Amino acid sequence: MVSVVIMAGGRGERFWPKSRKKLPKQLLSLTGDGKTMIQLTVERVKSLVEYKNIYIVTNEEFSDIISYQLPDVPTENILIEPVSKNTAPCIGLAAIHIASKNPESVMVILPSDHIIGDKHQFISILKSGIDMAKNDGNIVTIGITPEHAETGYGYIKLGDKYNEIKNNCVFKVDKFVEKPNLEKAEQYLTSGDYLWNSGMFVCKSSTMLNSMSKYMPELHKGLMNIKDAMNEDNEEEVFLEEFNKFDSISIDYGIMEQAEQVYAIPGDFGWDDVGSWSSLERISGTDIDGNTVMGNIVSIDTKGCIIQGNGKLIATIGVENLVVVDTEDATLICAKDKCQDIKKLLNQIRNSNNESCL
Amino acid sequence: MVSVVIMAGGRGERFWPKSRKKLPKQLLSLTGDGKTMIQLTVERVKSLVEYKNIYIVTNEEFSDIISYQLPDVPTENILIEPVSKNTAPCIGLAAIHIASKNPESVMVILPSDHIIGDKHQFISILKSGIDMAKNDGNIVTIGITPEHAETGYGYIKLGDKYNEIKNNCVFKVDKFVEKPNLEKAEQYLTSGDYLWNSGMFVCKSSTMLNSMSKYMPELHKGLMNIKDAMNEDNEEEVFLEEFNKFDSISIDYGIMEQAEQVYAIPGDFGWDDVGSWSSLERISGTDIDGNTVMGNIVSIDTKGCIIQGNGKLIATIGVENLVVVDTEDATLICAKDKCQDIKKLLNQIRNSNNESCL
Repeated sequence: MVSVVIMAGGRGERFWPKSRKKLPKQLLSLTGDGKTMIQLTVERVKSLVEYKNIYIVTNEEFSDIISYQLPDVPTENILIEPVSKNTAPCIGLAAIHIASKNPESVMVILPSDHIIGDKHQFISILKSGIDMAKNDGNIVTIGITPEHAETGYGYIKLGDKYNEIKNNCVFKVDKFVEKPNLEKAEQYLTSGDYLWNSGMFVCKSSTMLNSMSKYMPELHKGLMNIKDAMNEDNEEEVFLEEFNKFDSISIDYGIMEQAEQVYAIPGDFGWDDVGSWSSLERISGTDIDGNTVMGNIVSIDTKGCIIQGNGKLIATIGVENLVVVDTEDATLICAKDKCQDIKKLLNQIRNSNNESCL
Repeated sequence: MVSVVIMAGGRGERFWPKSRKKLPKQLLSLTGDGKTMIQLTVERVKSLVEYKNIYIVTNEEFSDIISYQLPDVPTENILIEPVSKNTAPCIGLAAIHIASKNPESVMVILPSDHIIGDKHQFISILKSGIDMAKNDGNIVTIGITPEHAETGYGYIKLGDKYNEIKNNCVFKVDKFVEKPNLEKAEQYLTSGDYLWNSGMFVCKSSTMLNSMSKYMPELHKGLMNIKDAMNEDNEEEVFLEEFNKFDSISIDYGIMEQAEQVYAIPGDFGWDDVGSWSSLERISGTDIDGNTVMGNIVSIDTKGCIIQGNGKLIATIGVENLVVVDTEDATLICAKDKCQDIKKLLNQIRNSNNESCL
């Protein structure tokens, strides 16, 4: 039996002004096909699992719109974190729900806001991962063959080749490494021994909980208390109390970097974590002037710009390498290489009587 | 007796998207004080003439909003050109209306969309100009002492000093010269013999009509036909027929460059013809980062930008030397040194199903 866990609690500040406190990236359509990122994520795994085995972990604020966007996913499978505690508690929460039905069930853990190019290869790799993960203790991570010396991602250093399942190579993982500087990223790229860490994992729910018991005993204890209180009178009370106590720790740091039976399957299916507005030109492509435009745009001498309109006419003259995003109550004009400063901007907006625009 | 003629038929395309086909620059408030350019023009001459002696020449489309913006100017003083024919027919039309009341009346002819800094000096110079213009045949032009080697203006080459009236020097005009290239503009600036042609003139209505009779006889003949038909049954018919026949000629070309008794009074009262968005930083000044902003703007690393908001939040990050203008149905983002391409842009808008934004 296979379950899919989709992590959908992210705030997506980097896509302001289109993403908002109440409407983060995973709930937006950014690729021009009208489907939101989370809808595309569910659509991709439809051949793998039934809707009743798809779990979404999110927060109270996003749960209604997620139910609305994913009407086929049972409401009881939308798991609500009372507070965001990074990926380890998020995955732990899904694991106890799935284990309470069937501890042998293999969990495919996916982010809700990534872009996948070749869906067939993606599913083929997940299937090989599921095969591997059927063995107790095995945790499989999907790594992405790097296309350039990216400093914005963590990397997975491969060990020896372990197996080959349906044309997909399986490697032992040597180690997980943090986001490198450019020099290191270039070394990683040329060595051929490193993959981008995509944040996608496959393992049995029992394996995940056993690993947590070994490497994150506090988290595991809390999760067991939550599990034991399920369907009891004090379920909600125990859940809130225990979850609030959890440390904010990523699954990479808490489990992956320590567990022993960790494997990686490399994929080159065209992957993007859509980390900022500048990702859009990779995803949507550019026109002859290097522009990526959506909406009602009229341009003269405009090059390398990403422009997202919102009905209203946007006219550009003589500008280069800008990100322009228009929404009903806010317009962003940002140098393409300064998108990371949007977070700084949001602080300034917070302090400038524009709270409603957040 | 003194009359003021304000030319207000200009289309002001260069201030798109704030200026529109139906709302050109002279009817907009661009300086942040809430008053429109034409209101400021009238306000400046209030000490010189009564409202009943202020004439506005414009077109059918703008006349209602001009009446609305200038409730004290008698409606019958708002003269409507059936078609725009440059400044000579415009001034001729005003001249016959004024001459029909009093040919000895001195006309002060002003554009409707210029900025004046020192209003006292401005009025003092106009008064000296009026004194000079009381003599038959004298035409006085107000020239601006150049502040830099501007290639966007025509110049007036001064001849000998002719007179001094109330501390204002009056020079014979040697000649009018067209917009120069940069090299020539620099020569003009250093020579000290040249003034910017501001397009402001003072002369009696009889002098103007006599000059037209001499140098633009076709125009004069048509104007006389229009004047003769005033208050007759065929007034409208004659007016339309004659006006439509007029050549499109500027007063500079048609009269000033040829007439003999042409004088100039230099002014350094702080003048700007507000020719494009980039004028705004000269007029409104800049903040410590060189920005000129109006509206709800939040900026990070933004330098040398002119930003005009419209209620909605505009956020900028890492941009330089941009003009950003937001209106209800269109947003312009333009390199500051490319404002002249707005006209090109409007053609493109015309061809892109956005007619309503013109």
